[in-house]
Amino acid sequence: MNQRLTKLQTWMRENDIEVSFLTSSENVFYLSGYYTNPHERLLALAVFQTDEPFLVCPGMEVHDAKRSGWDHEIIGYSDIENPWEMILKSIRKRITSVSKAAIEKEHMNVERYEQLSKLFPQASFVSAEEKLRMLRMIKDAKELKIIEEACALADYAVEFGASEIKEGKTELEILNALEFVLKQKGVTEMSFSTMVLTGANAASPHGNPGETKIQKGDLVLFDLGVVIDRYCSDITRTVAFGDINDKQKEIYDTVLKAQLAAIETSKPGVTAAEVDLTARRIIAEAGYGDYFPHRLGHGLGISVHEYPSLTETNNLIIEEGMVYTIEPGIYVPNVAGVRIEDDIYITADGAKVLTKFPKELQIIK
Amino acid sequence: MNQRLTKLQTWMRENDIEVSFLTSSENVFYLSGYYTNPHERLLALAVFQTDEPFLVCPGMEVHDAKRSGWDHEIIGYSDIENPWEMILKSIRKRITSVSKAAIEKEHMNVERYEQLSKLFPQASFVSAEEKLRMLRMIKDAKELKIIEEACALADYAVEFGASEIKEGKTELEILNALEFVLKQKGVTEMSFSTMVLTGANAASPHGNPGETKIQKGDLVLFDLGVVIDRYCSDITRTVAFGDINDKQKEIYDTVLKAQLAAIETSKPGVTAAEVDLTARRIIAEAGYGDYFPHRLGHGLGISVHEYPSLTETNNLIIEEGMVYTIEPGIYVPNVAGVRIEDDIYITADGAKVLTKFPKELQIIK
Repeated sequence: MNQRLTKLQTWMRENDIEVSFLTSSENVFYLSGYYTNPHERLLALAVFQTDEPFLVCPGMEVHDAKRSGWDHEIIGYSDIENPWEMILKSIRKRITSVSKAAIEKEHMNVERYEQLSKLFPQASFVSAEEKLRMLRMIKDAKELKIIEEACALADYAVEFGASEIKEGKTELEILNALEFVLKQKGVTEMSFSTMVLTGANAASPHGNPGETKIQKGDLVLFDLGVVIDRYCSDITRTVAFGDINDKQKEIYDTVLKAQLAAIETSKPGVTAAEVDLTARRIIAEAGYGDYFPHRLGHGLGISVHEYPSLTETNNLIIEEGMVYTIEPGIYVPNVAGVRIEDDIYITADGAKVLTKFPKELQIIK
Repeated sequence: MNQRLTKLQTWMRENDIEVSFLTSSENVFYLSGYYTNPHERLLALAVFQTDEPFLVCPGMEVHDAKRSGWDHEIIGYSDIENPWEMILKSIRKRITSVSKAAIEKEHMNVERYEQLSKLFPQASFVSAEEKLRMLRMIKDAKELKIIEEACALADYAVEFGASEIKEGKTELEILNALEFVLKQKGVTEMSFSTMVLTGANAASPHGNPGETKIQKGDLVLFDLGVVIDRYCSDITRTVAFGDINDKQKEIYDTVLKAQLAAIETSKPGVTAAEVDLTARRIIAEAGYGDYFPHRLGHGLGISVHEYPSLTETNNLIIEEGMVYTIEPGIYVPNVAGVRIEDDIYITADGAKVLTKFPKELQIIK
């Protein structure tokens, strides 16, 4: 039994949960090592306090699931079989009755919930999501290594994107060129829709890349990430095209100062709120408090947004092994939009910065 | 009230459903004209037998929803407001109690279902999905026009992809080049992951585009579609790179014959099964019955897979206004993989073929 499963089982014993029935691709992958997007078909992982867990997947994927390293039972079903009957049998082989089951309430749909409720009419259902968020929050060495790879490719993408900036090129042209070279490097999935925003667009919270042409004196904002082996990276850099004015420079310097201070503050024992407030105060003191409308950052891993959430009210304690973003921004309509974002890993001594593209203002001539 | 809403209301009156509470982006768009991907936030459309419907969306989207043409009530909520209380109030203004509500059981998650069940503890919940699938199955003139545009771009993509074929190029190189030119034409979303498969890969049901190099004598399979104004297209063509052998040619001719016959059969009054079996029999008679392992086709529209499903057991009657794919295939491991797929629209007189790239075997020299 892998350590992640063992931790889930401990939680189940502490909370008298006889079975956890997990259904999201992300959590099934985290616990079993097998990733698939089953589309409308059922994927599930059943975990018990002491009995052997089992995986449920479409029959044609059983081979792939085994090859991924899952060495416990696998229930494969064809399109004409009823997986729920097979699941009931496999659960009954292990335990005689279920009075409390954990599911992913934000993921499982009502149709499946009704199926499961019919199988176990005595059961109450609790949510497993909070527990899995807490488990996934602390990364192991293998996860860190993959995220570092994803970060290196994000660095490369920003570097390439910045080198593509030319008078009159559109946001979309640069975005397409940048994703094209990533594909050539084998990247098949971005963490989210890539943002390349210039001038006034970068200063609007609703900006979307489009046909706007880059002009001298613009600040150009890149926000992107790549998925490598199911783990995400997420970087933002804002670069200058030609000379920018003093106001733009002041805004850039303020964001950078706030970003560096929040990284410095990030270490085991402080709260998420303290980290957020470190950056938020610097921005407020510079007079831009009203122009920083979002949280400081978020955890990332299998999902691009996970725990911890860096807000000014979150008292969660920062721990060794967390990976999260630090991404303060200032958006003054029609003046400048600047955001600087790194992914960091928390060690016993403090933050290790995983994204490495320079943060001193890059001026593209 | 638009005609789609009126049809849903008729169904609700016939089935004593006081409120339909719909939550998928696709169905909300179909009924309201407003499309958004709300991610983890709540999006909903509440429809009543006679009272005015209302839309629920994140507060910052209210303006966009109005601009999209929705001229009924909109409930916008901020991240610190509880939308369920606002929903309860708006429903109570219209009707005093709910004994039967329709929801999307395959879309709504358990967490929201519990919220809704708390608001209406007396209510039973039925599924609205089958009804919406039946409504969405018949396309109007405006929908057809958009799908035709999406098909024209899919044709262009195949034409461009075929022109990129050269000795030694990889599947991924051609795939990337093809998606790149689509982006230049303003396409921002594909209907599904584009497939470019060559030689043995095209003959494997698990084929995924990769680093395999195209060689003379290969059959190269393109399967792709684009999303235009929220509607999908879906085309498959298989082209030859240089001269192919007699077996490959025989397989190609068989698939084409089956495909043309199924299109010919497609007209109002026949069943989906008859259409499927027309193609399936031709393939079986040629001795390839075991190598055609999937259904003949599927409806498409806002989703790339919708009703009707063209299987050998579906007795659904084909009607004017349907749009569906006809895509027989033969996959003989290590010999050849061939699939030919068109999108067709059903008129009173029969099928109008919307995808137009030639189907006579194209030989790339």
